[in-house]
Amino acid sequence: MSKVNGAPQKRLLQVLNGQEGDQTPVWLMRQAGRYLPEYREVRKQAGSFLNLCYTPELAEEVTLQPIRRYGFDAAILFSDILVVPDGLGQTVGFKEGEGPVLEPIADLAGLEKLDLARVLEHLEPVYETVRRLAKSLPDETTFIGFAGAPWTVATYMVGGRGSPDQGAAKAWAYRAPDEFQKLIDLLVEATILHLSAQVEAGVEVLQIFDTWAGSLPESAFRRFAIEPMKKIVAALKVRYPFVPIIGFPRGAGPMIVDYVRETGIQAVSLDTGLSPSWVRKEVQPLICVQGNLDPLLLVAGGEEMRNGARFILETLGDRPFIFNLGHGIVPQTPPEHVAELVEFVRDFKR
Amino acid sequence: MSKVNGAPQKRLLQVLNGQEGDQTPVWLMRQAGRYLPEYREVRKQAGSFLNLCYTPELAEEVTLQPIRRYGFDAAILFSDILVVPDGLGQTVGFKEGEGPVLEPIADLAGLEKLDLARVLEHLEPVYETVRRLAKSLPDETTFIGFAGAPWTVATYMVGGRGSPDQGAAKAWAYRAPDEFQKLIDLLVEATILHLSAQVEAGVEVLQIFDTWAGSLPESAFRRFAIEPMKKIVAALKVRYPFVPIIGFPRGAGPMIVDYVRETGIQAVSLDTGLSPSWVRKEVQPLICVQGNLDPLLLVAGGEEMRNGARFILETLGDRPFIFNLGHGIVPQTPPEHVAELVEFVRDFKR
Repeated sequence: MSKVNGAPQKRLLQVLNGQEGDQTPVWLMRQAGRYLPEYREVRKQAGSFLNLCYTPELAEEVTLQPIRRYGFDAAILFSDILVVPDGLGQTVGFKEGEGPVLEPIADLAGLEKLDLARVLEHLEPVYETVRRLAKSLPDETTFIGFAGAPWTVATYMVGGRGSPDQGAAKAWAYRAPDEFQKLIDLLVEATILHLSAQVEAGVEVLQIFDTWAGSLPESAFRRFAIEPMKKIVAALKVRYPFVPIIGFPRGAGPMIVDYVRETGIQAVSLDTGLSPSWVRKEVQPLICVQGNLDPLLLVAGGEEMRNGARFILETLGDRPFIFNLGHGIVPQTPPEHVAELVEFVRDFKR
Repeated sequence: MSKVNGAPQKRLLQVLNGQEGDQTPVWLMRQAGRYLPEYREVRKQAGSFLNLCYTPELAEEVTLQPIRRYGFDAAILFSDILVVPDGLGQTVGFKEGEGPVLEPIADLAGLEKLDLARVLEHLEPVYETVRRLAKSLPDETTFIGFAGAPWTVATYMVGGRGSPDQGAAKAWAYRAPDEFQKLIDLLVEATILHLSAQVEAGVEVLQIFDTWAGSLPESAFRRFAIEPMKKIVAALKVRYPFVPIIGFPRGAGPMIVDYVRETGIQAVSLDTGLSPSWVRKEVQPLICVQGNLDPLLLVAGGEEMRNGARFILETLGDRPFIFNLGHGIVPQTPPEHVAELVEFVRDFKR
């Protein structure tokens, strides 16, 4: 680890600030999760998934687990994008093996039940988790907070669950765009509150996940993905000009260029399907990029995984770059493959 | 309708041959389907979904239904991409409301049970449907045959069903790429046979659906999406040089450019998420494009649908272009919205 003035340097923060380091920083989306036996142990203790998110000592513990095992360059707060609707007062649950189930909101009457004023109080256990982690994380580990982007969170709030085509949210957005816009605007406000509170409690970087941005047609992508993100970034930059923000407009394809140019983010996370060769030409000259190994290559391990990682590092590694997956770790991932991957990235010589 | 030498001209074929017409041709993916009451009637009669595909008079009838209602410029054979694995001897079923269920194949022993030699005989009812339609379709209607691309068909054959991350197929492809390649190669052969038989029976255009190409990382996209497509197109071009082929690499993002340049197709279908502004600059100069209204805009209808269609027509309509959706019609689509859309496209003045 390089030191300046005796203090350990955080590789990930350095890269986000445009400094070239001696090694590519690496962390993995969903690095705290079901693929780890020690996570499953804590998950059992917690009872419900939301209870795990809202119990600071347990959420702290599962955030630290992958740092202990693998020494990642960043820890991402263990939480969920759906704590925001929960904080707003929508009924949110998680069914084992089925994912989130919400009581759907699809009209103005449903919107009126949501209350921005209760978000910060309701999510206080999350900020307590952040305060604990700010103390317990190793000095060299960058601490990332996060939230879902308004469009993605809205797809769950309106649909009541994940769906392959986001049909329910689109139905509302297309039938009554000005009504739907009120939900997006509310989520912009709630997201700013939630991310600000995380910064106040001690996170150093923010990532905003727009997991379902990819199915939006061009004009809806501008209205419901780029515009809300612009407002969130602008509000945060006024308050915390030195906290880098990473955007993840999953599946945006070539629209990622407009997203990068217009939102004011400091780095962009790439999904698995976006080709590094294209990114090198069209995106990396504009911004620091992060990504994008196929999580299924991490399941496979071995030669194919190393070939995939090598191609990414060779294509993107000589400009500001953070190694990551193109989507979250899947539960069937063998933990030893994660160790192999981290070692491979650390040993990679450009 | 324009006539040359007294024969009615097929608008869609003209555009595919690079001729500018007076009107933008329009058809919609899954235009024969559950959103139509007359389809649901025939579907009931047929018993199983595969029985509907394999009963020529019923498959003919449902292919014709949307042509009668809307006068689309093209009819697409009513069939399914999974008739190919069924033809190869894999057990394929369709559960009501659940989609396809196959007995998964994930090793060489499974592969050995598949038999290329039985495809044409087993799928004879499909070709009989084509022969009937070649006679019964209106003179001005272009007749499109189709197949799934090898990668997409393989995801169902290996996973046993649709899956959001194609995890099973990727697991095999990444663990033992040379084994998995044997499945892809077999599907290349089967697809060439199946599409050739459709041409011999009377289709005029072919579309190849690579619905799940979008989650492949760059090198796997080259190997499992571009390369097989190249072989299929090359084989068909030798036999049927004048039958245009439309590719649909759904979710390919910017990789669609390489796909277009390398596969030898005559047109490319665009998914909903691909922005027309980008396509106009980067793809349309290379090839005829087709697409890409959000199917959920067709559910919504009204002003938002017209705005979406107008934007596409204004952006792409003045070069060789076929109006379509970015994905198939969904069952909850009101049939009157389809009529509205077709009228809007026909009335649109550039």
